Amino acid sequence: MRKIAESTVRRLSLYLRFLEEFGARGAETVSSEALASRGGTTSAQVRKDLSFFGSFGKRGLGYRVPELAGRLREILGLASRYRLVVVGAGKIGSALVQYGGFRERGFDIIAIHDRDPAKVGSRWDGLTIRDASRLPEELRTLAPDIVVIATPAESAQLVADVVVTAGIRAILNFAPVSLVVPEEVTVKSVNLALELEALSYALTSRGSEER
Amino acid sequence: MRKIAESTVRRLSLYLRFLEEFGARGAETVSSEALASRGGTTSAQVRKDLSFFGSFGKRGLGYRVPELAGRLREILGLASRYRLVVVGAGKIGSALVQYGGFRERGFDIIAIHDRDPAKVGSRWDGLTIRDASRLPEELRTLAPDIVVIATPAESAQLVADVVVTAGIRAILNFAPVSLVVPEEVTVKSVNLALELEALSYALTSRGSEER
Repeated sequence: MRKIAESTVRRLSLYLRFLEEFGARGAETVSSEALASRGGTTSAQVRKDLSFFGSFGKRGLGYRVPELAGRLREILGLASRYRLVVVGAGKIGSALVQYGGFRERGFDIIAIHDRDPAKVGSRWDGLTIRDASRLPEELRTLAPDIVVIATPAESAQLVADVVVTAGIRAILNFAPVSLVVPEEVTVKSVNLALELEALSYALTSRGSEER
Repeated sequence: MRKIAESTVRRLSLYLRFLEEFGARGAETVSSEALASRGGTTSAQVRKDLSFFGSFGKRGLGYRVPELAGRLREILGLASRYRLVVVGAGKIGSALVQYGGFRERGFDIIAIHDRDPAKVGSRWDGLTIRDASRLPEELRTLAPDIVVIATPAESAQLVADVVVTAGIRAILNFAPVSLVVPEEVTVKSVNLALELEALSYALTSRGSEER
């Protein structure tokens, strides 16, 4: 399958979310205009995004919701299940293990590691916290699809290096650090503090008159 | 102050996080190489990023940690406090209200709104959930710096429109939808589901041999 742009993948995700909500309310067809409004784009762009993967819509009839949702799930690889290992049993790690949305969307957390001896061995939601010093060997045995880095920033690159060496090619990074990885490894980051600081900078650089 | 690129703002945030950790361990100076490793960049880029805001480092001595951290906090606008209104008292809204990291970094949640009559009036961590139908008037009275949208996707654009009309110029969006706002409004998004789907797509489009 040929590589499509990150921004297109993002829009396909947004369309899918919309189709799922729309379908749950019993709708059978949807227009490209309605999809456009959810994806923050134009109906021409929607048609272009979807035509990329074959013809779905019928002029004047719109797209059939279940078919299009099914096809998008396939394109996004959501028909498969993914095995995740979480590294870091702190606040974020704990929230992730408890978060039902992962399993619901096909992402199974199969193990969690931490380097704190006080945490290793305790049980969290059916998982036993494992010793992070054994990560190099265990990543080979567990062979997860994705490693979630939820460590302090100072350890994140070290973990990423271990992950890369183990041949794993997808990282979800919660640490406030920009990870350096080879091109064939995909890193996605979620970091609330960085988004807040970007907003703070935007407010400051404008010299907002209220303050 | 002139506008700098989003990627530079992101790196300044990463440098600051590093300086704070480093300073907490008693370090007084730091090299551009050390900063570079944290920001996922080169030391030449670090010097360029920082020279933008005046001269900080001394050749051979590195940067003084407390001075540089202070200056970065100023540049990022973190010397100020920001007033946040959260819209949507669901799981994400609840997690945000409980999250100590906001206040710690100068972001105060001053109100939370929801449209569910069963939730309106209940108290959360010292805040009373307010009726979202009164949002247009209340945003004018409360005059927050930032509105946090933590509603279902289908309501997010409606809330964004109200926020823009009220003259507020910064939005933190947790809904899986791409918001359409005028140029003078800054939107930052945090969405775990979208990041997971981007990873899923990356794994699928590669046709990884394990599956």
